[in-house]
Amino acid sequence: MTVVDELIAALGPGIVATDAASLALTQADKSGHMSTSAPLAVVNATSIADISTTLRIASATGTPVVTRGAGTGLAGAAIASGGEIVLSTLAMNRVLEINPADQLAVIEPGILNGRFNEILAEQGFWFAPDPASKAISTVGGNIATNAGGLLCAKYGVTRDAVLGLTVVLASGEVLELGHRSVKGVTGLDLTALFVGSEGLLGVIAGATVRIRPLVRGTVATIAAFFPTVTDAAAASAGITASGIQPAVMEIMDAASLEAASTLLALPGVSTGEAHLVVQTDGPAAAEEAEQALAVIQSLGGRAELSTDPVEGERLLAVRRAMHPAMERLGTTLIEDVSVPRSALPAMFAEIVRIEQAYGIRIPTVAHAGDGNLHPNFIFEGTEVPELIWRAADELFGTALKLGGTLTGEHGIGILKKRWLGDELGETQLELQRRIKAVFDPSGILNPGKVF
Amino acid sequence: MTVVDELIAALGPGIVATDAASLALTQADKSGHMSTSAPLAVVNATSIADISTTLRIASATGTPVVTRGAGTGLAGAAIASGGEIVLSTLAMNRVLEINPADQLAVIEPGILNGRFNEILAEQGFWFAPDPASKAISTVGGNIATNAGGLLCAKYGVTRDAVLGLTVVLASGEVLELGHRSVKGVTGLDLTALFVGSEGLLGVIAGATVRIRPLVRGTVATIAAFFPTVTDAAAASAGITASGIQPAVMEIMDAASLEAASTLLALPGVSTGEAHLVVQTDGPAAAEEAEQALAVIQSLGGRAELSTDPVEGERLLAVRRAMHPAMERLGTTLIEDVSVPRSALPAMFAEIVRIEQAYGIRIPTVAHAGDGNLHPNFIFEGTEVPELIWRAADELFGTALKLGGTLTGEHGIGILKKRWLGDELGETQLELQRRIKAVFDPSGILNPGKVF
Ligand SMILES: Cc1cc2nc3c(=O)[nH]c(=O)nc-3n(C[C@H](O)[C@H](O)[C@H](O)COP(=O)(O)OP(=O)(O)OC[C@H]3O[C@@H](n4cnc5c(N)ncnc54)[C@H](O)[C@@H]3O)c2cc1C
Ligand SMILES: Cc1cc2nc3c(=O)[nH]c(=O)nc-3n(C[C@H](O)[C@H](O)[C@H](O)COP(=O)(O)OP(=O)(O)OC[C@H]3O[C@@H](n4cnc5c(N)ncnc54)[C@H](O)[C@@H]3O)c2cc1C
Repeated sequence: MTVVDELIAALGPGIVATDAASLALTQADKSGHMSTSAPLAVVNATSIADISTTLRIASATGTPVVTRGAGTGLAGAAIASGGEIVLSTLAMNRVLEINPADQLAVIEPGILNGRFNEILAEQGFWFAPDPASKAISTVGGNIATNAGGLLCAKYGVTRDAVLGLTVVLASGEVLELGHRSVKGVTGLDLTALFVGSEGLLGVIAGATVRIRPLVRGTVATIAAFFPTVTDAAAASAGITASGIQPAVMEIMDAASLEAASTLLALPGVSTGEAHLVVQTDGPAAAEEAEQALAVIQSLGGRAELSTDPVEGERLLAVRRAMHPAMERLGTTLIEDVSVPRSALPAMFAEIVRIEQAYGIRIPTVAHAGDGNLHPNFIFEGTEVPELIWRAADELFGTALKLGGTLTGEHGIGILKKRWLGDELGETQLELQRRIKAVFDPSGILNPGKVF
Repeated sequence: MTVVDELIAALGPGIVATDAASLALTQADKSGHMSTSAPLAVVNATSIADISTTLRIASATGTPVVTRGAGTGLAGAAIASGGEIVLSTLAMNRVLEINPADQLAVIEPGILNGRFNEILAEQGFWFAPDPASKAISTVGGNIATNAGGLLCAKYGVTRDAVLGLTVVLASGEVLELGHRSVKGVTGLDLTALFVGSEGLLGVIAGATVRIRPLVRGTVATIAAFFPTVTDAAAASAGITASGIQPAVMEIMDAASLEAASTLLALPGVSTGEAHLVVQTDGPAAAEEAEQALAVIQSLGGRAELSTDPVEGERLLAVRRAMHPAMERLGTTLIEDVSVPRSALPAMFAEIVRIEQAYGIRIPTVAHAGDGNLHPNFIFEGTEVPELIWRAADELFGTALKLGGTLTGEHGIGILKKRWLGDELGETQLELQRRIKAVFDPSGILNPGKVF
């Protein structure tokens, strides 16, 4: 009996897809990268028992398993190849509990972040992790990548919102990690270790997450334009230094601004300008916005402030148009370096240098509130050209030199494997490999990814 | 040559203490527990090189090492015994960098939390983790125990404040974990794994921590009295449910209140009453305090509200007197169970039941904002009597049944070892042991603790 036959026998044919279209979908994620051969089957798990059965069969037969949420990853971490089983969580999309008194919810991994937030909003709550992909990515995927987003300087990354996890080990065994209580220090923090583990340690089959009461009061939005991106970066640094904690603070360089405003057919955007958008919320929103506006204007920014929600969304629209605008220009390699906030101007200057050295454009946006930049390398076709990889290599090296990291929120996957050792060093890399082996001794979980 | 001779030869006699008084001090922590024999030597490390040298010698000779900060732990985790080397971090107490622009600081592990905050305050910053022991415990110890405190429902536990660590492995090798940037997802999150690891995985030789601008504006304090502790717990739950996020929210039951107010010779405290103290801060402090006051009064609380800082400290004084008040009553086993917030009234009721069943008093305080209770078992002498352990056993079981945990912030150490398996289960315990072995293959780091 083949592995696929075993899966079908154990799970039923409705759960196990082997048609060419289903298989092909799992050969790519949103990085643009694609594997060269189709996997064996896609298991559309509907329960923890399905996950456990799949892993038990995979373990017994030594078959690799790629866990997959919505496949919106940008690092190639959920891409499957020949000989592998894909374990999809998309059908496990229920909210099992919303507990307002304890400000927690219990969910299945496949629920989309945006959908989860719609359900929470009905009860006056929200889930803070807010990747730009929230409408299309799963909460399980957000946990497995420790997703960040626009709001995370103020409201934390995904790790900060995870209290406990139900995980299934490579062996098929089900484990409960963490707590329903806000705090807990019993033994090593395996919950934190699973957050951001990119499918290497086990399958996240359920999660107990922290939810927050909806933020009350005004939301104030400022859209500002600056002669150069360095000016915009200086303004964002000035805002942080003044002790204000914006909910959102995003920078777009001239190339990004131009592409996005062209897409939206926006009037009033002068060529060559850079963009800074700041949003404040909570009880001090109006006051903080006035302070931020003063910093912006003192540094030569031309700015508009609104406390009207509709107008606020309009001011954010240009930033939100970034991804579709880039897709118009060609295939995009979205990079994800992160630096200490004070190094943002230096990092922007280095990107200009790299653009000139390689004769390419690298439209860049940054979550300025936390120092995370997304330089977009644009090219034709599906394979990243070697020239672009060389430019990216220089970008990574520069981020490390500035005290930063290769990846602020997208992860390592396949696309950043070759640089991981540069950041971690051989000893740490070896420790990480050995920790993986503790959870997955025969190495069937997402092999060839990360390490 | 003995191990001690080797240490002296390599480090110099000034670094290695072997006098009886120095050795005896390391046989206890603040749990009241004591080991039965003195360790070999205390290394007062002054540099990362000293730590590395010590571990290299320990590894080569197979000698166990107990890392020790200020020894204020309450779980026996820093207690040393015969045949062991104590590695003290107290002499490594410098602040190496304060970076206001990046809102981070780089410190040596031995600096006291309170001292660190004094230095930060001069520059308008603070370090949020605030164990009640902040004046006397080290930041390295806070990290190694993932310390919580009064403010952590609003401002997070120690894990949330750690960006990166310099650690020394059992082999003596020095490793840099984490980032200076706010975000970073390169590989498994070993930084988070080290936070709360109680000296099992390596020595924390330095840390890059997040600092925050001092909170501006009013601080409002409410001191309330209720007929029963269940009423006080209901009020704290009501405050959480109303969407307010207090900075501090602490409950004292009648026995605690009586002991503390007797110590302070406070007038106006009626016997049998329970106490709730709430503090709000930030831009909405006054408004939030009014709302909290309304909740308290609607639930039958007799309350006083002040926005005067001196008066506010006076209202908190009774809570702060808890620890010395307990010490007056006898030897204290300070327990540390944590439950989901909504289970606080049930947990208090269970404590009353356990008091009656065992014929003992268990004065209890709770960080009501996060569901963490400290039941104080009082006894004579230095050894915890078997009756008390049986009552504690029932307490732990109850907390687990209510969806909680053995320890919210103090850790496992020696004193909670026997219950760890009840919470984690055998599979998870075994995974934890194997992760320890990845870092410390010959098991020389804090052997006999936690597992
Ligand atoms: C337009 C766009 C904008 C984006 N913006 C952001 C952003 O702002 N911030 C950000 O952080 N990311 C962003 N991303 C990247 C991506 O959306 C996130 O990484 C997201 O968290 C992935 O979720 P997913 O469900 O699509 O996971 P997938 O892509 O399916 O998988 C990602 C990784 O997680 C693993 N995984 C998924 N589910 C599980 C599970 N249940 N158990 C174990 N492992 C699992 C996979 O094996 C893989 O390693 C963006 C992507 C796009 C296309
Ligand atoms: C009155 C009182 C009130 C307290 N209140 C609180 C509270 O509110 N919240 C709370 O969480 N705790 C509290 N505690 C407990 C204690 O203060 C904390 O656990 C504190 O974090 C311990 O710090 P320390 O420097 O004393 O560490 P130690 O007691 O010396 O060590 C504790 C553990 O950390 C390890 N360790 C210490 N330093 C390092 C290092 N550099 N590298 C690796 N491992 C290390 C030790 O091996 C040991 O396992 C209180 C204690 C007292 C006495």
